[in-house]
Amino acid sequence: MQVCKFVAPEIIFGAGTLSQVGKAARRLGASRVLVVTDPGVIAAGWLEHMLPYVEDEHLDYAVWSTVTPNPKDYEVEAGAAYYQRHGCDALIALGGGSCIDAAKGIAILSTNGGRIHAYEGIDKIKRPLPPMVMVPTTGGSGADVSQFAIITDTTRRIKMTLICKSLIPDISITDPLLLTTKNAYLTASIGMDALTHAIEAYVSLAATFLTDVQALRSIQLISAHLQASVDSMENLAAKDAMARGSLHAGLAFSNAILGATHAISHQIGGMLDSCHGELNAVLLTYVMEFNLRTCPTRYASIAEAMNINISGMTALEAGQCAIVAIRRLARNIGLHARLADFGVTEEMIPILSATAMYDACMATNPREATCEEIAALIRTAL
Amino acid sequence: MQVCKFVAPEIIFGAGTLSQVGKAARRLGASRVLVVTDPGVIAAGWLEHMLPYVEDEHLDYAVWSTVTPNPKDYEVEAGAAYYQRHGCDALIALGGGSCIDAAKGIAILSTNGGRIHAYEGIDKIKRPLPPMVMVPTTGGSGADVSQFAIITDTTRRIKMTLICKSLIPDISITDPLLLTTKNAYLTASIGMDALTHAIEAYVSLAATFLTDVQALRSIQLISAHLQASVDSMENLAAKDAMARGSLHAGLAFSNAILGATHAISHQIGGMLDSCHGELNAVLLTYVMEFNLRTCPTRYASIAEAMNINISGMTALEAGQCAIVAIRRLARNIGLHARLADFGVTEEMIPILSATAMYDACMATNPREATCEEIAALIRTAL
Repeated sequence: MQVCKFVAPEIIFGAGTLSQVGKAARRLGASRVLVVTDPGVIAAGWLEHMLPYVEDEHLDYAVWSTVTPNPKDYEVEAGAAYYQRHGCDALIALGGGSCIDAAKGIAILSTNGGRIHAYEGIDKIKRPLPPMVMVPTTGGSGADVSQFAIITDTTRRIKMTLICKSLIPDISITDPLLLTTKNAYLTASIGMDALTHAIEAYVSLAATFLTDVQALRSIQLISAHLQASVDSMENLAAKDAMARGSLHAGLAFSNAILGATHAISHQIGGMLDSCHGELNAVLLTYVMEFNLRTCPTRYASIAEAMNINISGMTALEAGQCAIVAIRRLARNIGLHARLADFGVTEEMIPILSATAMYDACMATNPREATCEEIAALIRTAL
Repeated sequence: MQVCKFVAPEIIFGAGTLSQVGKAARRLGASRVLVVTDPGVIAAGWLEHMLPYVEDEHLDYAVWSTVTPNPKDYEVEAGAAYYQRHGCDALIALGGGSCIDAAKGIAILSTNGGRIHAYEGIDKIKRPLPPMVMVPTTGGSGADVSQFAIITDTTRRIKMTLICKSLIPDISITDPLLLTTKNAYLTASIGMDALTHAIEAYVSLAATFLTDVQALRSIQLISAHLQASVDSMENLAAKDAMARGSLHAGLAFSNAILGATHAISHQIGGMLDSCHGELNAVLLTYVMEFNLRTCPTRYASIAEAMNINISGMTALEAGQCAIVAIRRLARNIGLHARLADFGVTEEMIPILSATAMYDACMATNPREATCEEIAALIRTAL
């Protein structure tokens, strides 16, 4: 029996919808909200912009803003203590994937207790979570719609993948205006992260007809608009298209899970605290080359969604064209091309490949891989 | 500010997934379930097939099977009394749109009280509803994923449209095997109902990027597989494609609402108790002709999704081809072509057009219409 499952939060999308955040939290029964954000978001003025909408609904709130990129176990635990101390009963995250994942981690500990490490893996969260409203400011992580949270275990120096339906936020609010304060590098790396989500979800062993429509539409939108979005901070049409592409990708990968790109990039990110999106941008095409012969027609559909004219090509050739086009795109938007640029060395490969084998995202990669094959794959991307 | 909203239930899909029904209800906290079904479903053996899965989870249940097509206000009220009398705390519907809508009506009354008429319109349901698991046996109504319930007011002889987010079931389980006992007429009329959902949602004033992907995919699937599904009760590939198409259409129209086809067919169905899907099949193309010049490019996209070669055509021409193709499809699967075949007469037109103007589906029709224009439209379809 092949069972397709699909779950999604309530989605609110549109320029100006940041104004809905207080009403959304109120609707979920919140009375005292923990707002999870970070210094970059505050500096851009978005917290100041949002809080009046929370106050309008007569909600009390406390702000917790000590989140770093690749949120750490101890940050989540400190956040949970802060949540308890302030008597909060709901969460709003305003930020990128790191803020949203940190908020999810705090939500877990607030009702389930213990240490965050206990919830690594699939379906380990038993008690219901408090209401969560997520407002992404980066457009790319998909964390605002996904059943994933990625938290760094600073002792083992790996990223833990937590997957559970209760991690799907109650309400996701995407306001594309929030993307206009993101610099070119962030726009590029996060855009490639979203493209990676869509591509890995589309070729995933857990892909279904419900995730396929989301993934293909995401690939269309991102491949058509990422360059323009990087080129100008003010191009609202491009920001809007990227926000839509990211949302489609989030809905796809939350339900289809991911693949070897994420399984490997989680390990490197956990070890070196590197930029997740840029790591994925490098790894993606090598993983595509690794997987190509396992499901060439899927990669041909990806090429078609990228608006590559594949007429007269074999599926393999079309897939290869998609790989070339993605490498060119990543180069044109100024991203690194090699893992060595992040400080990855030959010596790290045995441990990176060994831990990647245990990442929850590896199970849905279309081509089964041995640890040696993953090591060889990382080596080609060095 | 243009706000896009999107909501969906948890979806489980696949041949054999009927076996998940008990677990789904248990997961939602049910202990004593009202199973809403109808004599046709029982005769086909599906209730007998399902109940062991409910028993496996040690759930008590009562069965209520006195639902007729186009469920009536008094049936819903009798069902609600039955629900109370048996101390139920959750609902499972096993059946077509009528069973599912009846179950939604019972759910409303069970926690909100009063008469069902009080909840006609948008967002009139204030108290949360009991857990609902919906198992469609017809594939087409979309009621298993939608925020709609349609109940006949037998005094006014119209169909009431109830729209509220809380009407979205908690879990929708689509098992395409259940479609194999449906005869050709039911398959044809319900398939055209699903196609109407997709087309009206796609041209709706409330359509968004999130409903568009669902609507277009639905149009592709239904136009490619409906004929084969009607031709053979056992063609499981066609049943599976139709079930997927119906699900996509349900997700589209639940969020984008519908248009004049439904606004009119609700009135005729309320007055004459006619087959909803077949009525839509007749009305759809006349409404498309009425709307065509308001949004020709949307209709051209519909033609393209129907795999019509539109190269070299204007948008208007492409839209006209879509209309011709839909008329041909409806004829080929054996459905009526005129409203007179249902007993609609010239004398009924003033009342039908007047009440259609107040249907909740009229507000999202792309072309604004006067009562006289709707009367003229009905007349062309007589």
